[in-house]
Amino acid sequence: MTDSDLVTLRRDLHRKPEPAWREFYTTARIVEELQSRVDLDALHVGPDAIVADQRMGVPDAAELAAWHDRAREAGADPDLLDDLEGGHTGAVAVVERGEGPTVGLRVDIDGLPRPESDDPDHAPAAAGFRSEHEGAMHACGHDAHATIGIGVLERIAESGEGLDGSRSSSEQGSDGDFAGTLKVFFQPAEEVIGGGKSMAKSEHLADVDYLLALHIGLDHPTGEIVAGIDGFLAVRHLDATITGESAHAGGHPEQGRNAVQAMATAVGNLYGIPRHNDGATRVNAGVVEAGSASNVIPEEAYMQVEVRGETTDLMEYMTENAERVLRSAAEMHECDVETEIGAEAPSATSDEELVSIVADAAGRVDGVENVLERDRLGGSEDATYLMREVQQNGGLACYVGVGTDHPGGHHTATFDVDEDSIGHGIETIAGAIERIARDQP
Amino acid sequence: MTDSDLVTLRRDLHRKPEPAWREFYTTARIVEELQSRVDLDALHVGPDAIVADQRMGVPDAAELAAWHDRAREAGADPDLLDDLEGGHTGAVAVVERGEGPTVGLRVDIDGLPRPESDDPDHAPAAAGFRSEHEGAMHACGHDAHATIGIGVLERIAESGEGLDGSRSSSEQGSDGDFAGTLKVFFQPAEEVIGGGKSMAKSEHLADVDYLLALHIGLDHPTGEIVAGIDGFLAVRHLDATITGESAHAGGHPEQGRNAVQAMATAVGNLYGIPRHNDGATRVNAGVVEAGSASNVIPEEAYMQVEVRGETTDLMEYMTENAERVLRSAAEMHECDVETEIGAEAPSATSDEELVSIVADAAGRVDGVENVLERDRLGGSEDATYLMREVQQNGGLACYVGVGTDHPGGHHTATFDVDEDSIGHGIETIAGAIERIARDQP
Amino acid sequence: MTDSDLVTLRRDLHRKPEPAWREFYTTARIVEELQSRVDLDALHVGPDAIVADQRMGVPDAAELAAWHDRAREAGADPDLLDDLEGGHTGAVAVVERGEGPTVGLRVDIDGLPRPESDDPDHAPAAAGFRSEHEGAMHACGHDAHATIGIGVLERIAESGEGLDGSRSSSEQGSDGDFAGTLKVFFQPAEEVIGGGKSMAKSEHLADVDYLLALHIGLDHPTGEIVAGIDGFLAVRHLDATITGESAHAGGHPEQGRNAVQAMATAVGNLYGIPRHNDGATRVNAGVVEAGSASNVIPEEAYMQVEVRGETTDLMEYMTENAERVLRSAAEMHECDVETEIGAEAPSATSDEELVSIVADAAGRVDGVENVLERDRLGGSEDATYLMREVQQNGGLACYVGVGTDHPGGHHTATFDVDEDSIGHGIETIAGAIERIARDQP
Amino acid sequence: MTDSDLVTLRRDLHRKPEPAWREFYTTARIVEELQSRVDLDALHVGPDAIVADQRMGVPDAAELAAWHDRAREAGADPDLLDDLEGGHTGAVAVVERGEGPTVGLRVDIDGLPRPESDDPDHAPAAAGFRSEHEGAMHACGHDAHATIGIGVLERIAESGEGLDGSRSSSEQGSDGDFAGTLKVFFQPAEEVIGGGKSMAKSEHLADVDYLLALHIGLDHPTGEIVAGIDGFLAVRHLDATITGESAHAGGHPEQGRNAVQAMATAVGNLYGIPRHNDGATRVNAGVVEAGSASNVIPEEAYMQVEVRGETTDLMEYMTENAERVLRSAAEMHECDVETEIGAEAPSATSDEELVSIVADAAGRVDGVENVLERDRLGGSEDATYLMREVQQNGGLACYVGVGTDHPGGHHTATFDVDEDSIGHGIETIAGAIERIARDQP
Repeated sequence: MTDSDLVTLRRDLHRKPEPAWREFYTTARIVEELQSRVDLDALHVGPDAIVADQRMGVPDAAELAAWHDRAREAGADPDLLDDLEGGHTGAVAVVERGEGPTVGLRVDIDGLPRPESDDPDHAPAAAGFRSEHEGAMHACGHDAHATIGIGVLERIAESGEGLDGSRSSSEQGSDGDFAGTLKVFFQPAEEVIGGGKSMAKSEHLADVDYLLALHIGLDHPTGEIVAGIDGFLAVRHLDATITGESAHAGGHPEQGRNAVQAMATAVGNLYGIPRHNDGATRVNAGVVEAGSASNVIPEEAYMQVEVRGETTDLMEYMTENAERVLRSAAEMHECDVETEIGAEAPSATSDEELVSIVADAAGRVDGVENVLERDRLGGSEDATYLMREVQQNGGLACYVGVGTDHPGGHHTATFDVDEDSIGHGIETIAGAIERIARDQP
Repeated sequence: MTDSDLVTLRRDLHRKPEPAWREFYTTARIVEELQSRVDLDALHVGPDAIVADQRMGVPDAAELAAWHDRAREAGADPDLLDDLEGGHTGAVAVVERGEGPTVGLRVDIDGLPRPESDDPDHAPAAAGFRSEHEGAMHACGHDAHATIGIGVLERIAESGEGLDGSRSSSEQGSDGDFAGTLKVFFQPAEEVIGGGKSMAKSEHLADVDYLLALHIGLDHPTGEIVAGIDGFLAVRHLDATITGESAHAGGHPEQGRNAVQAMATAVGNLYGIPRHNDGATRVNAGVVEAGSASNVIPEEAYMQVEVRGETTDLMEYMTENAERVLRSAAEMHECDVETEIGAEAPSATSDEELVSIVADAAGRVDGVENVLERDRLGGSEDATYLMREVQQNGGLACYVGVGTDHPGGHHTATFDVDEDSIGHGIETIAGAIERIARDQP
Repeated sequence: MTDSDLVTLRRDLHRKPEPAWREFYTTARIVEELQSRVDLDALHVGPDAIVADQRMGVPDAAELAAWHDRAREAGADPDLLDDLEGGHTGAVAVVERGEGPTVGLRVDIDGLPRPESDDPDHAPAAAGFRSEHEGAMHACGHDAHATIGIGVLERIAESGEGLDGSRSSSEQGSDGDFAGTLKVFFQPAEEVIGGGKSMAKSEHLADVDYLLALHIGLDHPTGEIVAGIDGFLAVRHLDATITGESAHAGGHPEQGRNAVQAMATAVGNLYGIPRHNDGATRVNAGVVEAGSASNVIPEEAYMQVEVRGETTDLMEYMTENAERVLRSAAEMHECDVETEIGAEAPSATSDEELVSIVADAAGRVDGVENVLERDRLGGSEDATYLMREVQQNGGLACYVGVGTDHPGGHHTATFDVDEDSIGHGIETIAGAIERIARDQP
Repeated sequence: MTDSDLVTLRRDLHRKPEPAWREFYTTARIVEELQSRVDLDALHVGPDAIVADQRMGVPDAAELAAWHDRAREAGADPDLLDDLEGGHTGAVAVVERGEGPTVGLRVDIDGLPRPESDDPDHAPAAAGFRSEHEGAMHACGHDAHATIGIGVLERIAESGEGLDGSRSSSEQGSDGDFAGTLKVFFQPAEEVIGGGKSMAKSEHLADVDYLLALHIGLDHPTGEIVAGIDGFLAVRHLDATITGESAHAGGHPEQGRNAVQAMATAVGNLYGIPRHNDGATRVNAGVVEAGSASNVIPEEAYMQVEVRGETTDLMEYMTENAERVLRSAAEMHECDVETEIGAEAPSATSDEELVSIVADAAGRVDGVENVLERDRLGGSEDATYLMREVQQNGGLACYVGVGTDHPGGHHTATFDVDEDSIGHGIETIAGAIERIARDQP
């Protein structure tokens, strides 16, 4: 069973989903919660938590300002909000409990720019914690991730207290008596794979020996834990702007250079990039905006395209093909095209040693009925930036799946989590952290 | 030479382009100008000028409110603005000068939702009367049309005064001494072919015996007048919304039903609707908006499509094909599509009798060096609603082309008019009106 | 009523349709018929009738040989066939009857490479003269054209005989007593617009003062004659070969460069070339052949594309766009494309003076109930080469439409002609020729 | 080193590639070779080797007859050819050597309908054994497969002779002294996945205890053996015929229903069927033929499409999507489409027990420097029919990869094999067969 305060917290976050770099209320709420509940040794917020110039996918000033205002109106601490201005969101919270390894936990905190269902069958709608931000939604469970991050900090802070002899948490997968340092990275902008790098490059990660990251759901039911997830698709965003020439669509269609025809040709051929024998690839033209009026030959088309590959090479293969498709489609209609590479993330692998520890810890958690050693994500994640950074420094990393019954698919209007799984996540991760500290003194 | 006050007026209107049903400042400015310059017998404004429920293409309340506020800030008369609220724009101004036929003149007054060039070679930019409404522009000369409407009212009002014997305007194509009634219809929303019907169905048009309409430019140079324009393409707007299902583009692309793929397939095939042996056809996917984020399979795509035909049958042929293309493209990707028929306008023909009168009048105007009897528009116009209404009532109608040197094409960022042609338009139309009144007592 | 011998002849030709440059049997049959029925002054056959190196669209040697064999088996005169070898088909037959102008008549004689319907409702199938050449068909009435050419020669040869006083043909639109020279050009390869130029450039046309050409059908019913047809679309054939690289479609799709994807992208965008305000345009990808096996990424695609325009400029506009579409589509899939310009034909106009003469002659023909002065073809024709040649030499030219009830459209499997119209054609043309000779001595 | 007689044989087969069900010369040549070199106990040829009505992808009678004639002209035994008439090709050869298990070996023998390179760098061109059948080629190594089949029969027949004590083949991976029965299945029509089922269902396979199959190349170099290949993609062929209506492309394009536009739309969207998270999928429009003439709106388009999936479910997913794409593309252009399911093959797995035996045998072969336990095919194969049949009967099956340096990819114009690898294949397979017999008495 998940602590009822944490359920309240999760629902409050759910009500206020904030997309990438707009997590003003979310960051403030996390900070407030941490300050009132956990005996922290350090707390780095906003610009102190990230490397600002490594951020990717930051929206424009007007968009940031609008969400900043909204957070203020929602009652977030004004002083704290001042620090976060300009899209400097996120936090790193630190608990030091004696000598031992430095363990990192990364949780992401951003929502998605998509509307939430108001169907009465959708639990958040029925129970009154549906998104209050029209057009935005926690449709991927990051509200639960942030909550788990706080829960783990609380658990480990208390576990560390037990060094005097009392084993406060001997049940439920806990080995108790944590000795070492725990840093929880509340990362912004995962959905646009824009925040991982800015945390990976911060000084806070430099001394982390063991890094855990987690995701809820992923089609695993409540009570199932995947100890080590792999199969992260390398991903790259391509923003393409096709520019032609407008003309009166009735009077002189032949004088136009039609950016919408070029765009449509590009879309058709992007999805048709040949599948590759070396592994999975992906392509999506997720956003398209073009034209100005029905009677004007459209002179500009803007596209947000995304390519992925099971390996970096496959992602490069997709990039190269996508760029050629865009270029040729533009030429075909005498248009120009500017393609800008936006955010991107590499692939990564969970280390076997940590996978075993997590599996072991998960097996001891009440309510966890099934532990899988390994599964594949089949999507992308910028936790990979942090994982690879730690691995390159000689450390180990592991990405954990926390099963939850979710009625709708990830990123859909009816996504929701089974709140019981929040407790499973906290206990599994906390248990694993204690075990790491015990085994690697 | 065009009266310098009228040049000032035209430039002021140019600075404040307002798209369809948002002509708040424009209507107020026209009313103000008329009240200060012309001895009118009646002036019907806003809801009194149009049949409100025959309006097509009216934007939503928020959009209307934003432009209404803008007009207020620009200094338009607040009382007048109150009347126009909710997109009830336009005006009908009446001058009665004794016994005689009722002649109508229709001019359109709306701007386009497209940005204006800031190139120093673009005269409005150089001379300081470029659009102050970012994203909107008088790119089709309706600022000049409104100005001509006022100029003609002024001329005819004065000509009518001359009944006592003084022939105030014996020069320049004028036959002077107007006896009859002149009604000038300042029509909103031509660009979305949304306003013509609402004026055609008003009581003001019911007793019009002769209707003139005009357009500046159309690739004819300054000094050229086309006495009778035909070849109006019948036009229809189709707003299509394709709805699929979103999914995570990396994790489960197969679970999505991709509205962007459907849209792209539709676009490619819309432009490929077979050409027709019976005459010219047109199709344009002028606006496309789709998707929410690069990593989400897009679940919705919105398209503004426009079809035209040299005859109504050809427009119906295009409609039928376009609807089938949209339907099949949606089905292909397991999406639904809702296609809504928006604004539309029929074709029309200029009556020979009026064409001769206009040609004759034009031939007498200083600065007019070339008079063409006939030309084809090759575009669409909702003046056709008014023309057909008058013709069905037994009257005659004629659409006049007033040549102007325009550096950029209609609807492009560098469109502009040669202001000398405003005078040519006023004199030609006023001369024709006088002649009509004289010949048809 | 059409002479029953001519009906027999037409049906025999119908049974043996031969596509462009393969008119071996047809040419032999025409020659045989002329030699047995008409008192000719000269007969130029095959290589003597055309300029061989001006032929366009000649098929390869194997194809020619196969049809040559077939003609031999069908019983055509072997000696004559020898002359025609290698695709030198067609004939020019000359009748000289005293002093007078030289009048030319051009009829085309080739069939189409398409199967004929075997539906019992299709008259040729029911009456036993359906095509004996599977995959070929007289689906455009050239069997009737050749028959009319022979009928006219016969009529004029006899009319010329009448100079001694007997007016053999005073009925039916005839002015009798022809004095002058008649040359009938039995032209091959019209369907591929490949034969017109090779006859236009021959010495036989050099002294022609008046040229008539004709087409049956064109959606005009039996009993209707169109005296002068215009609106010939300029046309150009583009043969495109797209070359990519094959690969195993299951094992290594990424190693292929897919010519079918390039072709499909080209097709979609060819039909989408913007319509042009200056007039009608056409485009068709009439033949596509690509790939070798379902499990091989296709490395080659061959396309026969055709563009047309109401003017030569419009045809050039279409060509330029089509070439760019093909080039960009190939590049998009890393393929090469070779585009070869094949046959082409210009536009042309019927001279008013001849149109009047034809109209007058048609009005006197029994069974002709309606004579239209003018109509537009809306298609292409390489008779235009001969028309323009004569006009450039100072002569006059006219293209005549001979109405016929045709159950299926031109080029479809159920096209057929009402044989009564053959007589209408002969009498109209012969009458016009006599009138020309009489009026222009 | 490969026996020079076998090299001669392979080159002779290479010179005479025969596509699916046309392996007349090939079958006759194999039979002749076997009869002259191997002491067989039984030989089942043509109709006796296969179940005729389980054949898939059999070409039409004219095509079969043409190849049958060609085989006769090439000097194949006329009596034998009589047996093979109508596309009854292939053979099963049997060697019985005492008591022991029945081991099967399946090799495929057909060529591909694609031209072979005549580049002097292409060894078969340089050495004079390039394809003599224009448009056909052994581009997948089945000439080598057939040769290996004969070599293995020879080796095992001799090995069995050694039962009296002489160990004729104690070197090179051989365990000698074979006791049991060997059946080699020379299977036709693998390239169209058309022959596997007809051999799988024959009585000859019913008593096979262990089945081996093999493929040369697959991007593995000479000297490398893959003991067990998996990852066979399930495959299905879809033959689609789109039927519209023809019309004159210049005169009445609007009267056509354009099968080529439908086909092009289908192709674009077939390749765009969403990738699937459950595993690899494939789609290919390998053959397209459409239209009749450049000036006729094409009324028919024929397409050979192929879909594959890593599992049968994935193949069904692709089928369902492909059928919907074809249906909607036809509807979009008012065409009909008939989609016929042609050949298909399931997936299959190599049994671990046999994989170990093959790996062991391969390790002892001279020239084999690297033995991989497992690899994935990433393509399709109808050997899976035989493998699954044996496995369902309680037997074991294994598919072996025999590395060869191949300059061009499989199915390309420059594919060739390193003939040394033929020996490696023979020795590996023969060694494995001996070991099976020894271990499983």
